[in-house]
Amino acid sequence: MSLLVVGSVAFDDLATPFGCRENILGGSASYFSLSASHFRPVEIVAVVGQDFGPEHFKVFEGRPIGLDGLVQMPGQSFRWKGTYGQDLNEAQTLETHLNVFAGFRPVLPEGCRTASFLFLGNIDPTLQLDVVRQMAQRPQWIALDTMNFWIEGSHDALLDVLKTIDILLVNESEARSLSGERNLVKAYRKIRALGPRILVVKRGEHGVSLFTPEGYFMAPAFPLEEVQDPTGAGDTFAGGFLGYLASAQTFDLQSLKRAALAGTVMASFTVEAFGTARLQELTSESIQERMRLFSDMIHVSHH
Amino acid sequence: MSLLVVGSVAFDDLATPFGCRENILGGSASYFSLSASHFRPVEIVAVVGQDFGPEHFKVFEGRPIGLDGLVQMPGQSFRWKGTYGQDLNEAQTLETHLNVFAGFRPVLPEGCRTASFLFLGNIDPTLQLDVVRQMAQRPQWIALDTMNFWIEGSHDALLDVLKTIDILLVNESEARSLSGERNLVKAYRKIRALGPRILVVKRGEHGVSLFTPEGYFMAPAFPLEEVQDPTGAGDTFAGGFLGYLASAQTFDLQSLKRAALAGTVMASFTVEAFGTARLQELTSESIQERMRLFSDMIHVSHH
Repeated sequence: MSLLVVGSVAFDDLATPFGCRENILGGSASYFSLSASHFRPVEIVAVVGQDFGPEHFKVFEGRPIGLDGLVQMPGQSFRWKGTYGQDLNEAQTLETHLNVFAGFRPVLPEGCRTASFLFLGNIDPTLQLDVVRQMAQRPQWIALDTMNFWIEGSHDALLDVLKTIDILLVNESEARSLSGERNLVKAYRKIRALGPRILVVKRGEHGVSLFTPEGYFMAPAFPLEEVQDPTGAGDTFAGGFLGYLASAQTFDLQSLKRAALAGTVMASFTVEAFGTARLQELTSESIQERMRLFSDMIHVSHH
Repeated sequence: MSLLVVGSVAFDDLATPFGCRENILGGSASYFSLSASHFRPVEIVAVVGQDFGPEHFKVFEGRPIGLDGLVQMPGQSFRWKGTYGQDLNEAQTLETHLNVFAGFRPVLPEGCRTASFLFLGNIDPTLQLDVVRQMAQRPQWIALDTMNFWIEGSHDALLDVLKTIDILLVNESEARSLSGERNLVKAYRKIRALGPRILVVKRGEHGVSLFTPEGYFMAPAFPLEEVQDPTGAGDTFAGGFLGYLASAQTFDLQSLKRAALAGTVMASFTVEAFGTARLQELTSESIQERMRLFSDMIHVSHH
């Protein structure tokens, strides 16, 4: 089962209480694909500028990541500058330069239109819907990330694309503002009526909640002593979650739970270093080892 | 195995977004004992005033709750007035009247001095230590709750009592201010060096984290559609946690995990109604049923 991600490939300037980095690879499609590719091959559809050099392409090469849809355009790549305080749960955006992303209209290469798993990264909902419409056949699973900017500013377009998807991945405040409900059990019911059968609420250091018609699950965050940079944790989670599902090919509640554990473990690696550094060096042995550790950790035996 | 709680029995005036109540039974020893008594008999050591009438004693009577240590003194009972905003995780104290509690010096009746489980509710650490010293033999488990007021204002006395205990139950901000570490894995290491072998971090709607020398565990909160009043959730958790341990009589990591589930389930009942109302009407059938539901919810099968 093949995976397709449509999102951003970008350069980030980041400052956290543990250091800062300039000009490092970021963007939702970067984190998603590096994470998902540990489970299944993945295709990227995104746009970069002339400043995206061979050293950047190299990050994706040699992995099962297809770059046919990674278009290079005249101009600069999307650039984000953000900072985090002691509470790593919330980023403060200092600068956003859309650059080549401003005119981005994703065009899916022929080979991407039959993907079984589609992840719509956090971009304009009008573009997200356009991508759905370009698919040659309805993917088995469509997952979508969004943010308050679109929930408030492009509400109707967002509602249109939500009708077409299966899984919505958002944080608590986004789930609340989209549904108008503070209580997440109620928020899920409202969101389900909008289209998505499954709601994944990303809670940062508190873990993720999974609302499905078959039941509820919550995975804690993997406990870490050093969290250097939370950037990309959500997209890394999505990559691990969908990558695991695509590789498992079973989609019952137990599979969704294990997928949530896989996503959580992948995100736990991402936040240990700045940007995609930790994801780039990951081996399948270290992923398997942490998966085992994490499964044992949350396991409660009957007495 | 017998349980003993030393803490407050009080009257609360509460306002949440879902209503308000005046003059209702509250206090750490009330919530703890009503919760723990569903698992094991429990003795209360606390003080009340002349305003504590037969209708209030009746709440505890007919249950395995011993009241020999519940002293009535001239004056008014301890009274707390608090309010919660939409974020139910944090109470705002409007008024605190210590009343008879101002001169409270707990004296343990003979029959309480041999308890196997001692819970030191959130009171002056000097009194908590005094209670520990009154025990005829060292209890098998001593657990303690405290708050930033004592962490900041009675630091040395708190350090003295921490040396004598096994389990510290606090919220995230208390764990951080006591340890001087924002990261909870590091905070646990510092706190362990102060005495407690086990740290329970209460995270409200995000659940509880359990740090032990044998491993880490996190129990999510039980998902609820209606949370009316979070008052007493922490003491109810402590009651279920220690009550379960006392009844299980096994203390390995798996028992501690199941105890955390029991505490979580008990707390989920408390917050469904104001004050102790829901705890008072609880049957062991409804506790067992929610325990089963919750165990299934967090269970992840191997594939």
